[in-house]
Amino acid sequence: AYITKDAIPATTTDGPIAYAPNIPPIIDNDSVAIRVDIQHKKITVANGVCFWAWTFGDSIPGPVLRVRVGQTIKFSMVNRSNLTAEVSPPMPHSIDFHAAMVDPHDKYRSINPGETLHFQWTANYAGVFMYHCGTPVILQHMISGMTGMIIVEPEAGFPGKVDKEFAIVQNEYYLKPKGDSLYETDVTSARNRQPMFVTFNGKSKQYVQQPLEVKAGDRVRLYVLNTGPNLTSSFHVVGTIFDKVWIDGNPKNEFRGMQTVLLGSSNGAIVEFIVPEKGTYVFVDHSFASVEQGAVGLIEAK
Amino acid sequence: AYITKDAIPATTTDGPIAYAPNIPPIIDNDSVAIRVDIQHKKITVANGVCFWAWTFGDSIPGPVLRVRVGQTIKFSMVNRSNLTAEVSPPMPHSIDFHAAMVDPHDKYRSINPGETLHFQWTANYAGVFMYHCGTPVILQHMISGMTGMIIVEPEAGFPGKVDKEFAIVQNEYYLKPKGDSLYETDVTSARNRQPMFVTFNGKSKQYVQQPLEVKAGDRVRLYVLNTGPNLTSSFHVVGTIFDKVWIDGNPKNEFRGMQTVLLGSSNGAIVEFIVPEKGTYVFVDHSFASVEQGAVGLIEAK
Amino acid sequence: AYITKDAIPATTTDGPIAYAPNIPPIIDNDSVAIRVDIQHKKITVANGVCFWAWTFGDSIPGPVLRVRVGQTIKFSMVNRSNLTAEVSPPMPHSIDFHAAMVDPHDKYRSINPGETLHFQWTANYAGVFMYHCGTPVILQHMISGMTGMIIVEPEAGFPGKVDKEFAIVQNEYYLKPKGDSLYETDVTSARNRQPMFVTFNGKSKQYVQQPLEVKAGDRVRLYVLNTGPNLTSSFHVVGTIFDKVWIDGNPKNEFRGMQTVLLGSSNGAIVEFIVPEKGTYVFVDHSFASVEQGAVGLIEAK
Ligand SMILES: [Cu+2]
Ligand SMILES: [Cu+2]
Ligand SMILES: [Cu+2]
Ligand SMILES: [Cu+2]
Ligand SMILES: [Cu+2]
Ligand SMILES: [Cu+2]
Ligand code: NA
Ligand code: NA
Ligand code: NA
Ligand code: NA
Ligand code: NA
Ligand code: NA
Ligand SMILES: [Zn+2]
Ligand SMILES: [Zn+2]
Ligand SMILES: [Zn+2]
Ligand SMILES: [Zn+2]
Ligand SMILES: [Zn+2]
Ligand SMILES: [Zn+2]
Ligand SMILES: [Zn+2]
Ligand SMILES: [Zn+2]
Ligand SMILES: [Zn+2]
Repeated sequence: AYITKDAIPATTTDGPIAYAPNIPPIIDNDSVAIRVDIQHKKITVANGVCFWAWTFGDSIPGPVLRVRVGQTIKFSMVNRSNLTAEVSPPMPHSIDFHAAMVDPHDKYRSINPGETLHFQWTANYAGVFMYHCGTPVILQHMISGMTGMIIVEPEAGFPGKVDKEFAIVQNEYYLKPKGDSLYETDVTSARNRQPMFVTFNGKSKQYVQQPLEVKAGDRVRLYVLNTGPNLTSSFHVVGTIFDKVWIDGNPKNEFRGMQTVLLGSSNGAIVEFIVPEKGTYVFVDHSFASVEQGAVGLIEAK
Repeated sequence: AYITKDAIPATTTDGPIAYAPNIPPIIDNDSVAIRVDIQHKKITVANGVCFWAWTFGDSIPGPVLRVRVGQTIKFSMVNRSNLTAEVSPPMPHSIDFHAAMVDPHDKYRSINPGETLHFQWTANYAGVFMYHCGTPVILQHMISGMTGMIIVEPEAGFPGKVDKEFAIVQNEYYLKPKGDSLYETDVTSARNRQPMFVTFNGKSKQYVQQPLEVKAGDRVRLYVLNTGPNLTSSFHVVGTIFDKVWIDGNPKNEFRGMQTVLLGSSNGAIVEFIVPEKGTYVFVDHSFASVEQGAVGLIEAK
Repeated sequence: AYITKDAIPATTTDGPIAYAPNIPPIIDNDSVAIRVDIQHKKITVANGVCFWAWTFGDSIPGPVLRVRVGQTIKFSMVNRSNLTAEVSPPMPHSIDFHAAMVDPHDKYRSINPGETLHFQWTANYAGVFMYHCGTPVILQHMISGMTGMIIVEPEAGFPGKVDKEFAIVQNEYYLKPKGDSLYETDVTSARNRQPMFVTFNGKSKQYVQQPLEVKAGDRVRLYVLNTGPNLTSSFHVVGTIFDKVWIDGNPKNEFRGMQTVLLGSSNGAIVEFIVPEKGTYVFVDHSFASVEQGAVGLIEAK
């Protein structure tokens, strides 16, 4: 890895990225350039609840990335935390890809505000992997929003054909009030594993207000990632059964006919199910305190 | 689904049902009628601890149901919560079968006191599935006792022959004192994931007082379900090893030689083990705080 | 099982034992004698934090034991808790091997201070198993340090060749201050599942100070055990991917390409990974509150 001081690019990301629940298209080259910059940014977690987050790209979770086994990822990342210095103190950050096999001491090093980090790595295993900031206190960086999903496809793509696919990233928020609708992160409740919110794709109950859309009869594939940072997820879709579950997103780790998939903190999964009829399906963390804290969404089947 | 207002039947259940740890016989037809009514009823959770529960049938957990892949279940359910209106306010309830593939908005609708719900569904996947009330606040309905197990057999039955089989449903109670031995549900501790009791088949340590009975040399099959609503279960039997574990009760999801099976909230499993000699075996949630809170039982081998 | 009153042996252990992270050599006989005595002993949990522990052998965790499927283990254990009676009250203790199939009422009985327990058992299943004291209140005995790992090899050994292997036992400490650097166990926080420390091989962050040593290119095998007593472990190594994971240490339960393995309380696993280059890798419980509480170590690759 090496560090440069470049001009700040016009956009915060570059490459095969999309914002969850969307999945980006794959880029069909031996190597692929990806840039994901870090910002300090105000993020809305629930109606009437926002906080100054630290983000990859523009959002919590960070952008969904998608590569293929065998591809070399030419990665770069600008620490833009100095750009909002008047409201959020700039600080070092880093990135740790669970999909990579590299020396963390080298590639996952922290960079200062205004610096650009460069390193490359090759994807060896298919799956649904986590990435996150690894700068101490890591727990603080995670609860500040620095987590995301990278999908690594097998060389021949994931087996089987599906009609719809979505990315679902689960995370916990640990916040305390700071004034009006503004909150700040709370390491104490994070150490006690007592979240204030548990959400899908970063905002409490967002897919209750805006359901995911499918059709009756569709085979749906969800790329699911539990970024924690602390709790397990008992991921479940009300009204259907998972025909296939691939633990950590690897088709070699297949379960069939599952009602619920249990994911550790930083476990991924691909789940596939048939939508049996028109209706409104509900995805939850079936650890139901999490539903009360925001981990519920709808899938509307026309 | 449709709703009627019928006369209240003489019994609270009908069909292939039994009360855990018992397993009902299968009914060998293409379709099977099942009725499980809802009551408000005082339930004893531990010696000296009772509360006004909301139940499927007469008990916590609700009755064990047993059907076969391919069978059509003609289901009906009477909301009898008006029958004890003088002590427990009547209210809407519903049922969500994890074994079914149906529109939740339609089939899992809430019905009012005195109403009967009717819907039918076909069992597509073998396994050990949860059912529960899905009426908001769902967490409140779950901790009030509205959870149970439905077993779906493969078309040719579960593979292999066993000598004894039992159903074990794990659940958490979240209660606070109301006076004398009477308690009431406590949504605050449920949201904090801090249970007062964790039990097998609804009553703390009941199988310490009345052990399950087997014989030395028996191959024993347990149908295990963790209904949560919040915690995982690290299910274990002291003195033996699980020869086979089928996650969510599906023989395709087989593990061998397991000391402990980890179940998410609403995961099932079938576990099989040999009873090596005469003696007293102990089943626990090996998350040992749960043992202190009631999740311990005995298997006596003569 | 039978109990004798013998002279106290000169050493606290005998047989195929080692102290984690080390793995003992196998003894190539049909039967193998193992002795692990119980002591009350002051143990250091973190810099500036010690307590009067109850231990198997000389340490927390107890010694790593290693046997083979088919071997008969001739086990004995002296309760030496009377030897430090002036500072820690002597008391009954016992041992429960998750690798054994025996009547717990007989073999896992409690013995008094000064007594020696004798029983034998045969290893039937390969894996990475827990042992622990089973004397009530078991939760108290576990948080006092009475847990350890026993490895059972398949008859032909574990498949595949590796370059390095280590044993990693995760546990939680529940302590409260007693004076200066002295602490004592706290059953209340243990019942609330709120640990003070989470450690690998018994001491907070010990492998940050003294990393495990490997070489770039090595295939490394870790024998991992989560002794709890309460929490799951989301075991992960930063900078690599688990090429193989065998749940509960049984090669029949294989996963491939895993970023993280989720272990229940008393689940084991064997994980194998390639060290991709020179560097510093980090093993954690990726439930990151646990990292803050001590569950982090380094692997240095030269
Ligand atoms: Cu950061
Ligand atoms: Cu990580
Ligand atoms: Cu209800
Ligand atoms: Cu459910
Ligand atoms: Cu003990
Ligand atoms: Cu145990
Ligand atoms: Na949501
Ligand atoms: Na369902
Ligand atoms: Na019990
Ligand atoms: Na056992
Ligand atoms: Na450590
Ligand atoms: Na990694
Ligand atoms: Zn950071
Ligand atoms: Zn459901
Ligand atoms: Zn509908
Ligand atoms: Zn209800
Ligand atoms: Zn045990
Ligand atoms: Zn006995
Ligand atoms: Zn003990
Ligand atoms: Zn990592
Ligand atoms: Zn390095």
